[in-house]
Amino acid sequence: MALIVQKFGGSSVADAESIKRVAKRIVETRRAGNEVVVAVSAMGDTTDELLDLAAACTPIPAPRELDMLLTAGERISMALLAMTIKGMGIEALSFTGSQAGMITTAEHGSAKIVDVTPGRVREALDQGAIAIVAGFQGFSRDSRDITTLGRGGSDTTAVALAAALGADVCEIYTDVDGIFTTDPRIVPQARKIDAISAEEMLELAAAGAKVLHLRAVEYARRHGVALHVRSSFSDEQGTIVYDPQKGHPKGEQVEEPVITGIATEKSEAKVTVGGVPDAPGKAAQIFEIVAKTHANVDMIVQNVSAADTNRTDISFTIPLGDGRRVIDALEAERETLEFESLQYDDQIAKVAVVGAGMRTSTGVSAQLFRALYEADINIEMISTSEIRISVVTRADLMDKAVRVLHTAFGLDSDTEATVYAGTGR
Amino acid sequence: MALIVQKFGGSSVADAESIKRVAKRIVETRRAGNEVVVAVSAMGDTTDELLDLAAACTPIPAPRELDMLLTAGERISMALLAMTIKGMGIEALSFTGSQAGMITTAEHGSAKIVDVTPGRVREALDQGAIAIVAGFQGFSRDSRDITTLGRGGSDTTAVALAAALGADVCEIYTDVDGIFTTDPRIVPQARKIDAISAEEMLELAAAGAKVLHLRAVEYARRHGVALHVRSSFSDEQGTIVYDPQKGHPKGEQVEEPVITGIATEKSEAKVTVGGVPDAPGKAAQIFEIVAKTHANVDMIVQNVSAADTNRTDISFTIPLGDGRRVIDALEAERETLEFESLQYDDQIAKVAVVGAGMRTSTGVSAQLFRALYEADINIEMISTSEIRISVVTRADLMDKAVRVLHTAFGLDSDTEATVYAGTGR
Repeated sequence: MALIVQKFGGSSVADAESIKRVAKRIVETRRAGNEVVVAVSAMGDTTDELLDLAAACTPIPAPRELDMLLTAGERISMALLAMTIKGMGIEALSFTGSQAGMITTAEHGSAKIVDVTPGRVREALDQGAIAIVAGFQGFSRDSRDITTLGRGGSDTTAVALAAALGADVCEIYTDVDGIFTTDPRIVPQARKIDAISAEEMLELAAAGAKVLHLRAVEYARRHGVALHVRSSFSDEQGTIVYDPQKGHPKGEQVEEPVITGIATEKSEAKVTVGGVPDAPGKAAQIFEIVAKTHANVDMIVQNVSAADTNRTDISFTIPLGDGRRVIDALEAERETLEFESLQYDDQIAKVAVVGAGMRTSTGVSAQLFRALYEADINIEMISTSEIRISVVTRADLMDKAVRVLHTAFGLDSDTEATVYAGTGR
Repeated sequence: MALIVQKFGGSSVADAESIKRVAKRIVETRRAGNEVVVAVSAMGDTTDELLDLAAACTPIPAPRELDMLLTAGERISMALLAMTIKGMGIEALSFTGSQAGMITTAEHGSAKIVDVTPGRVREALDQGAIAIVAGFQGFSRDSRDITTLGRGGSDTTAVALAAALGADVCEIYTDVDGIFTTDPRIVPQARKIDAISAEEMLELAAAGAKVLHLRAVEYARRHGVALHVRSSFSDEQGTIVYDPQKGHPKGEQVEEPVITGIATEKSEAKVTVGGVPDAPGKAAQIFEIVAKTHANVDMIVQNVSAADTNRTDISFTIPLGDGRRVIDALEAERETLEFESLQYDDQIAKVAVVGAGMRTSTGVSAQLFRALYEADINIEMISTSEIRISVVTRADLMDKAVRVLHTAFGLDSDTEATVYAGTGR
């Protein structure tokens, strides 16, 4: 008997009809002889509606109370899902994050899981019941308060439960068929990836792929949890995210592709601090000031200093929403930093090419630069990891860059991918 | 420093504007130097909306899951109320029934409070915070599950907290100005009662007065909790429900009125089992059968048996909703019970006159019967307690009966009462 953890997002349980459809799938998995644990998000727009209510009551809601408020969302979806399954004749019990033993830090809105003690979930399984667990939420032993895990929290709940229970697989249901070589809305010839290593998935998620949340992928990799990303609208196999330590699910002999996928990100801006004195410690000063704004710096590029002036340019990318704060903070320190100019550019896009085969394959970056050059696409910034190359281009050239690279690295499929509405979150 | 428990029902927190109004009142009570604990119901129609959702998912929702679902309602209202108060600069913390120590039996949907351990509420007060507690909900130690208290549950939560914390008063906020001598929609000259003893309030609530729930009044009487029923729309004093052991709040010398109030009930039906053999044990047989249907029998009347037939009629009243079940159950046993006829009458109303002064005052029933006789109102059933006389009349004569008795017992006010929309629940 296998133990399967299934995660359903808000769009999969948006209304009574969707809940019944999801319940049916869960019951089928149980009837096939598996033990089933389900992590579920709040219904459709519930979270946004609760946030609107909070905003109507007070301008800056207290984080503790906001968590108390938002966790009502999963309480509703999980109870409805459990009663629907029970109505189909299969025993089911719902558990809040606290009841399911999701022990977290006390940071409201972005709590981290510190321990998982799913004793009641295990008991429910032992009694033959399906356990329905509220995603996104936990409980802090220190503050004795209800917490939430922040964005992508329900994926993380599912993965953490799978790890703690020693599940055979954690199925992440979404509204797309799996992980694609790139966004099918940009490249209709994008192919569904049958299997991808956790480290490649991590690079893709970090570079902007939206289907799986970075944190959940990290958790899965750290605990060796196999993920299966698949559509809640079909019975087709999706994408297996496997632990490279345990090898490819189809056997060791499968050769790793040089490039597995291409991720894109349009929600960043580039800041260029121009004419910075090329003296030790200047870069540190700049990024200390940026760090104080809590902006999340992604790529950093420093040009070679011009010999005649002994000054250099430092460019970096940050999320669009942090732009104002970062620019204000740097302007306020212009005299200390002694820079000559400050540029802010929100018309950029990032394209990241990821593949574990890059490690053993030479010439990938050359191939990438040539493909973009031949398509007349200028590269403004470059950053690389062992298995990833990211480039920054003009925003309006992003789609073209992705198409060119998708073809250049032989990722194009013969058929066009089915694109569902929604975002998969 | 006084400790005040305040209860706000769903209509008082129906939207963001109402929540802000309620928050303002709570903050004023705190700023006046009191410790404040608040019990709050779910917003407006939330509970009904959740019930509709459940019904759309499955025909007979599992009680455990239904409780899990419904308790999301107070979680939303209490979190919004707490964050609104915090936004006004006063510390506030919300607590679920479980966090507030509302320990109940495990009966889902109608759990009874078995213990109240409000340690966290007390801590919050000691830190100078206002504690906002979810009404209607609790936690069973036996099943480790979330429970709900059933109808009127939020009143009961407030009273139980007041008892456990030794509060000076438990204020029940509603959309009417207090307890009236009778329903002002029937008798515009109804007077607001300044003070009423708990035993009188209990009789009125049991006889159909809707402002306070019977169970909360019972709990308050048993634990000596003083209630103050007042409007959330005005600052006027409402009605004090006092412990008769401790005496009238205005001093012992106040003479108890003979009649304090008149309650009405239109949601009952009368069943008459005709021609029952007048033999020992027949009535017991009948009511054993009725008890098996779980119908709540209210009044019972047995006529003297006719000497020639040695048969008698037994009439009783039951809630309208139980009618079908009771009639079917009796018909099924017609041969065993040997009755001659079975009548069902849903066009009846009950009028109950309540007053602690009845104990020491003679002639109250004579006065009542005469007043109704002179108004041409026939009495079909009578039942009495030490401080109450209830009569059953035709439903279409109920309003007239109430007006006649209100005048006969000198309850009429010189001015007309203000009637708000809504029901006060």
